Amino acid sequence: MTDIARLFGIEFPVFAFSHCRDVVAAVSGTGGLGVFGASVFTPEEIEIELDWIDRHSHGGPYGIDFAFPPRATDSGPGAEPDLPAQHRAFVADLLNRYGVAEFPAGTDEERATYRGVDFGDYDEALEVVYRHPNCRLVVSALGTPPSGVVERAHAEGRLVAALAGKPEHAVRSVAAGVDIIVAQGSEAGGHAGSVSTMVLAPQVVDAVAPTPVLVAGGIASGRQMAAAMALGGAGVWTGSMWLATEESDLSPEMVQKIVTADSWQTVQTRSITGKPCRVVRSAWSDAWEAEGSPKPLPMPAQGFLVEDAMRRIERASRDRDTGGLELLTCPAGQVIGQLTKVSKASRLLLDMVEEYIECVEDLERRLVAE
Amino acid sequence: MTDIARLFGIEFPVFAFSHCRDVVAAVSGTGGLGVFGASVFTPEEIEIELDWIDRHSHGGPYGIDFAFPPRATDSGPGAEPDLPAQHRAFVADLLNRYGVAEFPAGTDEERATYRGVDFGDYDEALEVVYRHPNCRLVVSALGTPPSGVVERAHAEGRLVAALAGKPEHAVRSVAAGVDIIVAQGSEAGGHAGSVSTMVLAPQVVDAVAPTPVLVAGGIASGRQMAAAMALGGAGVWTGSMWLATEESDLSPEMVQKIVTADSWQTVQTRSITGKPCRVVRSAWSDAWEAEGSPKPLPMPAQGFLVEDAMRRIERASRDRDTGGLELLTCPAGQVIGQLTKVSKASRLLLDMVEEYIECVEDLERRLVAE
Repeated sequence: MTDIARLFGIEFPVFAFSHCRDVVAAVSGTGGLGVFGASVFTPEEIEIELDWIDRHSHGGPYGIDFAFPPRATDSGPGAEPDLPAQHRAFVADLLNRYGVAEFPAGTDEERATYRGVDFGDYDEALEVVYRHPNCRLVVSALGTPPSGVVERAHAEGRLVAALAGKPEHAVRSVAAGVDIIVAQGSEAGGHAGSVSTMVLAPQVVDAVAPTPVLVAGGIASGRQMAAAMALGGAGVWTGSMWLATEESDLSPEMVQKIVTADSWQTVQTRSITGKPCRVVRSAWSDAWEAEGSPKPLPMPAQGFLVEDAMRRIERASRDRDTGGLELLTCPAGQVIGQLTKVSKASRLLLDMVEEYIECVEDLERRLVAE
Repeated sequence: MTDIARLFGIEFPVFAFSHCRDVVAAVSGTGGLGVFGASVFTPEEIEIELDWIDRHSHGGPYGIDFAFPPRATDSGPGAEPDLPAQHRAFVADLLNRYGVAEFPAGTDEERATYRGVDFGDYDEALEVVYRHPNCRLVVSALGTPPSGVVERAHAEGRLVAALAGKPEHAVRSVAAGVDIIVAQGSEAGGHAGSVSTMVLAPQVVDAVAPTPVLVAGGIASGRQMAAAMALGGAGVWTGSMWLATEESDLSPEMVQKIVTADSWQTVQTRSITGKPCRVVRSAWSDAWEAEGSPKPLPMPAQGFLVEDAMRRIERASRDRDTGGLELLTCPAGQVIGQLTKVSKASRLLLDMVEEYIECVEDLERRLVAE
């Protein structure tokens, strides 16, 4: 269909980011390319997940996504930052006000640590990746990856992609050897910038041509896919549309929030990771925005600050505690307003591609009808 | 080319909003449809401007755009609101800090009043419109127009359009008899909401089908036009792309800011009109965002508060005073990052349409090459 599809030997130029192996396998097994968001997993867990994906994706290729540290000088693994007493007190008070229970004492839950902000272990994780030949794409979630990563990936015959919210970031990544750019507009879930997909994508496409650019942010239907391709995309990068699927491992409570939310119920907040991150608006994001609240700490400190709170909130929401449900949030883009029911991932992908083809044919028809 | 083009007897489904009659005439005379932003003009001035457009648009149809009061209960013309002393002092201090000169005493400049926030006289202005048969479209900039306006326009054989930043606003406008919806994403210049064009447009299209929807926000090239049409647009609504044209009546200083700005140098601020309005970021918008600054007043009070300041800043910037240049701003969308030189409006329109056609043909080619 497109150059990028030929490059990977896939049918459709649709890339699907998910933290859930079931979504990755479903998309890669249906002609797209699933990308496994691996930042919160240990190397041992990644081994298990990739083995599972290999067995369930009908031989389709897939990718993996890491939050490599944005700069080589960033603190390595395990370097927990100092967290101001004011911030600790604010979080404790917030959970208290919403009646979120403590972890049961002496359990694994109490001892767990949040690994999503701990920029480490990716060397070991990448060794796992390179033992999985179908994992054809290594993605850097936060921009230009460390140079060693690019060289090694290429030596292993893998392609490397990097997300970009500005043309100059994309140019820097291409100079560092990155093969594919993901241009992500402000409407996207998770970490993104302030310029929308409609405006950003053509600028990135022009800045790095002929490097292929996947268009991300606001893409969850065939019409949006056609729009992204019109903007110069070699393909599309999707994420939020897989949150409300049968394959998603989000809690039923979070899925419920997503299928009932409209597009106005997401917000860019620094309160989760320290960088602007679009999430479903909740009592958590509101509390950090309120007058008199402390400013979120920078990345990675904010992540360390809130990791336990996030897990306690999810736990409370699974118990259907009112306070936990009010605070509960997760990264999601503005397209969640389009999601009104739980669907099968393979069905979503095929419907999207069918609508895309119809949309392009309709555009051509309207042109000729002149 | 499209239904909407046939409806108006125009060649291209491109609508061009501008406060400048030269831009309106150039677009309407080249096969598009110019829309004259008339809110800051008196009925007498509108008569002069429309007569001029009639003489310079080669018989092409055009439209007119008013900021009708969003609700019938809003205060009528001339009802100047109370302005808090704190806010008056903040504005005075800001101009003082940047050394912006007072108006020359006893001149017309000193006596002028800002009519953009004075929701009045539009009955009389519309009578002027109805004496101009080529003014085929009446547009409501702030949402559903007053019902009397729709009835009268239809009786006069004119079509009515209304801007919408949410599907429910579009539905309300269609219920009020509006013929065409302009779905405006958050990247747009001027008053807009928080959801991007990519996400908003399909929702509005579906909500009001089969009512035609013009897609606005982030549209300034043929690729963006193709994307907008893919999202279900019956046509496109453009604005910022006409700011840096030979026909624009912006000051050379403001045009210079626009052609040098990138897409990250706009900001949604309530500091101009009281409603979120995307403008070129400047010392003015920064000052209102700074910690400790007063919150902008609601519309129309903020407009009354800052009207003299805006005129004094423009005056100072035309004199090339440093402070005035730093404070100077105007409404503009994120697409200004694409504008790098001053172009002829007719050339911009034809280039856009040519790129749009190539883009659609390329989309179709890529599909068939599968």
